Amino acid sequence: MTAGTPVLAAVDWGTSRFRLWLLDGEGRALAQSQGPEGLDAGRNLGFEAVLRDHLARLSVPEALPVVICGMAGSHEGWVEAPYVQLPASLDAIAGTVVAVPGTALDVRIVPGLAKRSEAAPDVMRGEETQLIALTAEEPAGRMRVCLPGTHSKWVELRDRRVEDFTSYLTGELYALLGAHSILRHSLAGAADAQVDPEDPVFLDALHRAFAGPELLLAGLFSIRAAGLLGGLLGGLAGAEAAAARLSGLLIGTEVAVALRDEAAPAAVTLVASGGMARLYGAALQAAGAVVTTVDADRAVCAGLMAIAFGGRAGGLARRQA
Amino acid sequence: MTAGTPVLAAVDWGTSRFRLWLLDGEGRALAQSQGPEGLDAGRNLGFEAVLRDHLARLSVPEALPVVICGMAGSHEGWVEAPYVQLPASLDAIAGTVVAVPGTALDVRIVPGLAKRSEAAPDVMRGEETQLIALTAEEPAGRMRVCLPGTHSKWVELRDRRVEDFTSYLTGELYALLGAHSILRHSLAGAADAQVDPEDPVFLDALHRAFAGPELLLAGLFSIRAAGLLGGLLGGLAGAEAAAARLSGLLIGTEVAVALRDEAAPAAVTLVASGGMARLYGAALQAAGAVVTTVDADRAVCAGLMAIAFGGRAGGLARRQA
Repeated sequence: MTAGTPVLAAVDWGTSRFRLWLLDGEGRALAQSQGPEGLDAGRNLGFEAVLRDHLARLSVPEALPVVICGMAGSHEGWVEAPYVQLPASLDAIAGTVVAVPGTALDVRIVPGLAKRSEAAPDVMRGEETQLIALTAEEPAGRMRVCLPGTHSKWVELRDRRVEDFTSYLTGELYALLGAHSILRHSLAGAADAQVDPEDPVFLDALHRAFAGPELLLAGLFSIRAAGLLGGLLGGLAGAEAAAARLSGLLIGTEVAVALRDEAAPAAVTLVASGGMARLYGAALQAAGAVVTTVDADRAVCAGLMAIAFGGRAGGLARRQA
Repeated sequence: MTAGTPVLAAVDWGTSRFRLWLLDGEGRALAQSQGPEGLDAGRNLGFEAVLRDHLARLSVPEALPVVICGMAGSHEGWVEAPYVQLPASLDAIAGTVVAVPGTALDVRIVPGLAKRSEAAPDVMRGEETQLIALTAEEPAGRMRVCLPGTHSKWVELRDRRVEDFTSYLTGELYALLGAHSILRHSLAGAADAQVDPEDPVFLDALHRAFAGPELLLAGLFSIRAAGLLGGLLGGLAGAEAAAARLSGLLIGTEVAVALRDEAAPAAVTLVASGGMARLYGAALQAAGAVVTTVDADRAVCAGLMAIAFGGRAGGLARRQA
């Protein structure tokens, strides 16, 4: 495969977002097209029409292979790619992609993973592709992986197998509470602003959550109370402080629980980009973990390359902290 | 004071609800008027106009004393009744009611309570009146009181003083998650239905929460996963089961944390009515507590009577389980 020549259209098709990268033979992104066409748009406009629109924007030839991960493979998606069950070999996932019938395009969809446990059932769609990218480069052994987001995932990998994973409602709860709960008065417009990972209020909330991760329901109300009593509590008042406190409380609770059975110092691979990478990086460091950060978008592309062509997924820049 | 003759208009004026009881000298309700006129209606229509409308519905003479508890005394309310600070004598609360100026009516508003702690600031408005009703009848000593609701309160009383209290966002989170989160797909229309306190799914979720109250963020997502994997997990699927599981997870987490430092068996006074009393009663019993239940509405009336006229607040029926 030649550098600079497109060999794959790599697509992450989620509930509320469509992203396509045109990749060359070394997995480098030559061009990108993204839009708000999530699952609903696919169902209303037709999945093929949405995909063809984005391919046309980048003048992609019709014969180029397309590999899609994410919710497009769900029961509500284009073609259902049934969940692979735990414990799951990542090679098995790559081997069970589902070809989309009835189109002149060469489209395959990556299956998700399911944990069919009665005590703690769980599912993922999209993150499995990032895991494939991680392990394609790694030696055998154990890895703890944190993939933060709307529904953060913590994964236990061993020898290229997913042994276990747990999802946390962290990101969705942050958005919900800032928009719809009584805390919206305290956060005002600051819920969508980027929380500063070095803000002492954020760091203080992290440490409180580490010390008492079971106290979440009470901690949430105390953010409102701090707002009401604001003038008398100094730095705790103000919308930015409320957002930092909420973010620290939620992320700190997730990290404390996810690391509670790990020997210290825990080694964690963090798959994240931008502000999310900075906040989780700060939280993991505050918890004493040794963190290796991998860019989330590059992991998606590298995973889709590995699924399309097998073998090693090059080009995952790692940053150790 | 004569039985059957009205001596007090007792009002609970909350964020989204107005309730007025006409009470005789023994604290019995002769008539009741309620409506959706919460804080916003008071501000838009005028607090006095809303109150006079409800008084007129019950043909209450203008000279009858009116005592109001709840958000009408907040900064956004009719007249601010500043928070009394912890530790707070319940007699001090009764003694610091604020008379409403500028009206021909005899109206007084009960102050709320505030905990000005930097680690866990907290506030209440309305529940202090129910506490006054409880302690008016009780001998000196320690009481643990649970007042469930949108923002559940757990209170530590000692010798007619509020030593400490903690609010939990339990009820609001249940409503939010059922209406706005990804769990709305799993709960469908069942979020507003009454969860059965004897439902094995509710009881199972309680016990899981008791065993791991720090696992809330993960437990929430697993309700969605159970819905997605439904067909394969038997009884866990279905909207009613999802609602029971969410309710058990949230209430169980609150109860586990609130009782974690109590010697067993904990003695808890539960101030609640209707379905809420049944669910929290079941949760407290499942946690091994000895529960005495007091009807929440009767506690409001008895507390307002005690505030208006001092002395003992008769007529609090207690049911021990």
